Amino acid sequence: MPRFAEVTALTTDGPGRFSGQVHPDWTIAGKPNGGYLLAMLGRAAVLAGQHEHVIAASAHYLYPPEPGPVLVEAEVLRAGRSASQLRTRMSQDGRACVDALVTTSVLDPGVKPYWSAGVPEAGDSLFADGFRLPEQSPSGFEVAIMREVDLRIDPASLGFASNAPSGRGELRGWLALADNEPFDTLSLLYAVDSFPPATFDVELSGWVPTLELTVYVRALPAPGPVRILQRAHLIDAQRVDEVCWVWDSSGRPVAHGTQLAGIRLG
Amino acid sequence: MPRFAEVTALTTDGPGRFSGQVHPDWTIAGKPNGGYLLAMLGRAAVLAGQHEHVIAASAHYLYPPEPGPVLVEAEVLRAGRSASQLRTRMSQDGRACVDALVTTSVLDPGVKPYWSAGVPEAGDSLFADGFRLPEQSPSGFEVAIMREVDLRIDPASLGFASNAPSGRGELRGWLALADNEPFDTLSLLYAVDSFPPATFDVELSGWVPTLELTVYVRALPAPGPVRILQRAHLIDAQRVDEVCWVWDSSGRPVAHGTQLAGIRLG
Repeated sequence: MPRFAEVTALTTDGPGRFSGQVHPDWTIAGKPNGGYLLAMLGRAAVLAGQHEHVIAASAHYLYPPEPGPVLVEAEVLRAGRSASQLRTRMSQDGRACVDALVTTSVLDPGVKPYWSAGVPEAGDSLFADGFRLPEQSPSGFEVAIMREVDLRIDPASLGFASNAPSGRGELRGWLALADNEPFDTLSLLYAVDSFPPATFDVELSGWVPTLELTVYVRALPAPGPVRILQRAHLIDAQRVDEVCWVWDSSGRPVAHGTQLAGIRLG
Repeated sequence: MPRFAEVTALTTDGPGRFSGQVHPDWTIAGKPNGGYLLAMLGRAAVLAGQHEHVIAASAHYLYPPEPGPVLVEAEVLRAGRSASQLRTRMSQDGRACVDALVTTSVLDPGVKPYWSAGVPEAGDSLFADGFRLPEQSPSGFEVAIMREVDLRIDPASLGFASNAPSGRGELRGWLALADNEPFDTLSLLYAVDSFPPATFDVELSGWVPTLELTVYVRALPAPGPVRILQRAHLIDAQRVDEVCWVWDSSGRPVAHGTQLAGIRLG
């Protein structure tokens, strides 16, 4: 089974120019996961820039690439001492697919959180008690990516699977990579977009395509699965904004995502 | 007093190429407000694209421009039927200052929110009861922008002004533009970055420079002041992430912002 580092690998073709392969299994209904694509752009930013960790990445999604070869480009906008900013983009057959701005820096493993009272409670559910999501969505399409990762929903969040959403718009659970590959700042970009839409806990719908995804990576994660809370805020004008919190296995908040997605409700 | 539309005005110099003037009064300690700069980039996206409303904008801040002339560029990445994506950038004297990705669309004034249970309570404070922020910060620097707007903090959030922060990391209040100019999708980009750092309600600090700012505009706002909730989540590694909620005068949620900023605490 390919490791995350392998399915996001890039070959350098020239300065700021890379080629990659979108894996056919990292898809939902045949469309690549948006966080997975952002991880490839983050990798390009790390390769083209001077800092090893992505701390902020903001992607706008133009067109979903097909599984197969993609061109990834990275342009350094500013190379500072403590941080760099880059523009990255993914295209396929000359068509622009994803554009992202990325800030890279170096995260110090010795730093501890100073104040975290604004972060929701992580909860105390156990990885072992979670329900592993199958390769088919409740509305019937194939979720091939569930073959590649071990994504578990807490029993208390499982109402949507029996057509009994809680109405809170909130899904909690866990994510592990294959062979328990440790998370890094790039796979955290995927983690914040890995969960089903939190709107499933409001009302089931078809595909909820990500339009914009912003991720902040706040710390280097400890090895092991990450705990995830995906929460919907507002469904208006056939769009929804959601937030994602990610804690590492030690309980430390390590990443925060926010996304705007299209939805056929309302 | 200049209206918001005037201080963000752009002159077209060529295809996707505009000139603007950063106003000396839209500054905090001499540095232009980040949301104000993003509104100029949003205007460039609307002028260069085919849709009149910004619905998502993500900015990475490289270098603060001085008040005075700036070059603003906008490149159409994709021109769709219902939405367009653009890359925009601001530079000054050849130095890159702000890069932003912007998605534009058309917001229909007839649509109503479908589900909003994930949005915090707006609260019931009154604009008239708010405390108008002065032109000097608690830590002593000049906040010239307070001459240009009427920003009012709810009495319950005012602890920071008497060195008694609540520790919740939360500021609530109101924002009105000069002469009660109605808000639009561009001035909402400023609104989500208009409040003092919510970390002032944890501990006072110096400048809290925005590194990344993402805004979702969800609806066209009704005329009148907007209600704002600015909330800090996590201070870690000398950075903080904050969220901003904006409601229009009718109580409808109209914009949501999230930002990563630098802070000298911890």
